[in-house]
Amino acid sequence: MHHSALHTPSRIQLTPAGELRHFISIEGLSAGLLNHILDTAEGFLGKEGSILNAPLLEGRTVMNLFFEPSTRTRTTFEVAAKRLSANVLNIDMQQSSTKKGETLRDTLWNLEAMAADMFVIRHSASGAAHFMASEVCPNVAIINGGDGRHSHPTQGMLDMLTIRRHAHKAFADLSVAIIGDIKHSRVARSDIEALQTLGVRDIRVIAPRTLLPTGIEEFGVTVHENMDKGVEGCDVLIALRIQNERIGSPLLASSEEFYKLYGLTEARVERAAPNALVMHPGPMNRGVEIASSVADGPQSLILKQVNYGIAVRMAVLSLCMQGQLSQRGVTL
Amino acid sequence: MHHSALHTPSRIQLTPAGELRHFISIEGLSAGLLNHILDTAEGFLGKEGSILNAPLLEGRTVMNLFFEPSTRTRTTFEVAAKRLSANVLNIDMQQSSTKKGETLRDTLWNLEAMAADMFVIRHSASGAAHFMASEVCPNVAIINGGDGRHSHPTQGMLDMLTIRRHAHKAFADLSVAIIGDIKHSRVARSDIEALQTLGVRDIRVIAPRTLLPTGIEEFGVTVHENMDKGVEGCDVLIALRIQNERIGSPLLASSEEFYKLYGLTEARVERAAPNALVMHPGPMNRGVEIASSVADGPQSLILKQVNYGIAVRMAVLSLCMQGQLSQRGVTL
Amino acid sequence: MHHSALHTPSRIQLTPAGELRHFISIEGLSAGLLNHILDTAEGFLGKEGSILNAPLLEGRTVMNLFFEPSTRTRTTFEVAAKRLSANVLNIDMQQSSTKKGETLRDTLWNLEAMAADMFVIRHSASGAAHFMASEVCPNVAIINGGDGRHSHPTQGMLDMLTIRRHAHKAFADLSVAIIGDIKHSRVARSDIEALQTLGVRDIRVIAPRTLLPTGIEEFGVTVHENMDKGVEGCDVLIALRIQNERIGSPLLASSEEFYKLYGLTEARVERAAPNALVMHPGPMNRGVEIASSVADGPQSLILKQVNYGIAVRMAVLSLCMQGQLSQRGVTL
Repeated sequence: MHHSALHTPSRIQLTPAGELRHFISIEGLSAGLLNHILDTAEGFLGKEGSILNAPLLEGRTVMNLFFEPSTRTRTTFEVAAKRLSANVLNIDMQQSSTKKGETLRDTLWNLEAMAADMFVIRHSASGAAHFMASEVCPNVAIINGGDGRHSHPTQGMLDMLTIRRHAHKAFADLSVAIIGDIKHSRVARSDIEALQTLGVRDIRVIAPRTLLPTGIEEFGVTVHENMDKGVEGCDVLIALRIQNERIGSPLLASSEEFYKLYGLTEARVERAAPNALVMHPGPMNRGVEIASSVADGPQSLILKQVNYGIAVRMAVLSLCMQGQLSQRGVTL
Repeated sequence: MHHSALHTPSRIQLTPAGELRHFISIEGLSAGLLNHILDTAEGFLGKEGSILNAPLLEGRTVMNLFFEPSTRTRTTFEVAAKRLSANVLNIDMQQSSTKKGETLRDTLWNLEAMAADMFVIRHSASGAAHFMASEVCPNVAIINGGDGRHSHPTQGMLDMLTIRRHAHKAFADLSVAIIGDIKHSRVARSDIEALQTLGVRDIRVIAPRTLLPTGIEEFGVTVHENMDKGVEGCDVLIALRIQNERIGSPLLASSEEFYKLYGLTEARVERAAPNALVMHPGPMNRGVEIASSVADGPQSLILKQVNYGIAVRMAVLSLCMQGQLSQRGVTL
Repeated sequence: MHHSALHTPSRIQLTPAGELRHFISIEGLSAGLLNHILDTAEGFLGKEGSILNAPLLEGRTVMNLFFEPSTRTRTTFEVAAKRLSANVLNIDMQQSSTKKGETLRDTLWNLEAMAADMFVIRHSASGAAHFMASEVCPNVAIINGGDGRHSHPTQGMLDMLTIRRHAHKAFADLSVAIIGDIKHSRVARSDIEALQTLGVRDIRVIAPRTLLPTGIEEFGVTVHENMDKGVEGCDVLIALRIQNERIGSPLLASSEEFYKLYGLTEARVERAAPNALVMHPGPMNRGVEIASSVADGPQSLILKQVNYGIAVRMAVLSLCMQGQLSQRGVTL
């Protein structure tokens, strides 16, 4: 979560007219634009969890470039792109020509030359999506599907859609707690950026010192090491996933210990505001960062998040395509 | 092939109005419904082995969830769903989030929340498809693409379509022999259920004692350990696949020995009725369960079975979608 | 590059009326037919690198059968087929039923029986595509996506399209140099066949003796071991890829040594004709067979080749489908 050249907020995502043409990071986008994405997403929501189709990407070629495996994120983007009638290709970049000694730059230039319209990118390196948009593929819309610890902006936006639809207050009046492994979480970073942009003033991060990035206070959030205090009166509780590989490391003694101190239990939900929203980006470790009864309880919006995620990705894909085309002087 | 709670015939597959909404097992379905599936499938057959397309699943999302690898079955369902204009996603469940500690239930709930309409499931555990339809995903149509030793109902139905189109007798008057590894075969079980429902009275299973399930006689079939006697006068001869891993086990000394005693040779085909139908679910071990000359001979319908399999899967997918929608009060 | 029964030029690719119905090899095709493919491909080229869609394969089933991995070639065919509105299935033949003891012939017959219209085939054995078209699947159009050292005809055609669009002379007046590992290159063979058919008289191959096939002179080309002399006055320079596994073998001491003697450097490009075209089939080893400054320089058409490759594959797929149908007495 350090600032660096790679992470600098950038106008690269926008056309000169201020339309979205890449979606790399929430940082630097206006509240108006975020709400436009949310409004567009909401237009794809049907009744009873159904999603409406729209042929906005008909004849367009969307390539899912996954540099690290992620069945879930790949699937959500594939569903979203197909609901927009795009031609979708899944390309396992771990198996691609870079293995044959080709540079990554050449591989991407080649995919661009195949007349691709959009790349959805998942990469383990922070800043990978920004690099691709600025250095490699200026004519292809780049959608960040998660890069290192940096950013997971579509997850951030689907969390905002969930909050906007289910909280009974304006963003400015909400108290939101983000709980768990803040240090390694691209979700946490994207959520904080989006919440701040949308006007949330009371953002709390709840975690042991070892799972907090250095300099976290500069992000305009309050830090709580004591969860019982941290959740008090909160309207939104976002439990983050603990990566299995961290458990047993010096950062995190055991999953039992973590659950005791930071697990989202019924007792802790009761300390929050009445009807506080319970959220989790998935995949969940039940009994580690969240109690099963809470995950499946009446305040849980965890599966709604997944459902809204399809609509948010449809919104981002179609808006970026529109931005690309208007930059080229074409209308969708 | 034991009866248990998981395998109990169930009304879960049908809407209150008796329409198909899941396709998990042939057990418990009526002859009328089986014939309706066959009639629907027949409507997709064009001339000279071509298959007719129909946009009955346009805009619908079908997910192929393969918990064990099966290129062939996955491909047939993918072809069938695409011919119905569905959006199809192949999801390798062996690589999915369950690897990250997520429960299977959560993984499936997540896929359901992505607004999936149908899951095609292949699983090594008997009862997996029934479990998913009853406990996990009530709003998604579940199509069983083979679960353990339990059931492979689309294979059963394509076998019935093959028999109905090529036998010159009504089902009630047919003698059908199923030959080989009955004990481990989900095809055998589905075939027997379908044949009985459609009225076949003379069903013979031909196998060494070691490859017969205990209690096989209770299924209303006659058992033959001597193949030359078993095939006598039969109208339909279905040779089952011998799994390579069984050969050399205590159950099965050698493939040569098996071929000598139970291989479907020209001589044995001659002992059956004139123009008896020769069938095999594939993939074949030539020279083990069937002679090459028989597999490629004039009585073989083995490739017709594959062709009809596309039409049968199109029928099952479109009928289940229709059932789901009519249950929700929507028309296709 | 030896002639054998498998490699014999064959009428199998054409219908009795002379239309293309398989695309296995450039050998034996007329200049008229090659130009018809190029004209058709050109019709799919839009402005600024865009590719036009055309629903010529709507409702058709194209199967990509990859017996050896090739993300790049698979992707180009998948993009091309989807731009023609085909249903496309990627089938990893290394994972298929042949693993279960099924013969390759049976596997292919099975895929054909699923009512496939076209197979795109990539195989490590020379002659594999021809074998499939002649012996196994006569009713499915076979498109060779590269077989062993034998042929890579769509690469040959996209190279011809690149030359035809960018050279300022007729084919008959061109000097073309092909540089590098001629011996193991299916691209070299397909390029030479196409260039000769289109009337190029001055074809030079530039390579160390160890990377030349025996009998190369019989192909009607001139051989140069000295690259500085070989490129003199050439209009087209095609650098071939050096397979990593050859480097350090008795055939090829080191990549530095190769670059010194046969690398396509700026100095060597200057010895060629002014504005000579620089081409490479990819993936490139920068600093081995080509200098980075040349690959990215103003004369490089390397990314154009990739772009034209989509159009050429669209042309080949649609023409072969048309040929199949006209053979069956149907119109597209």
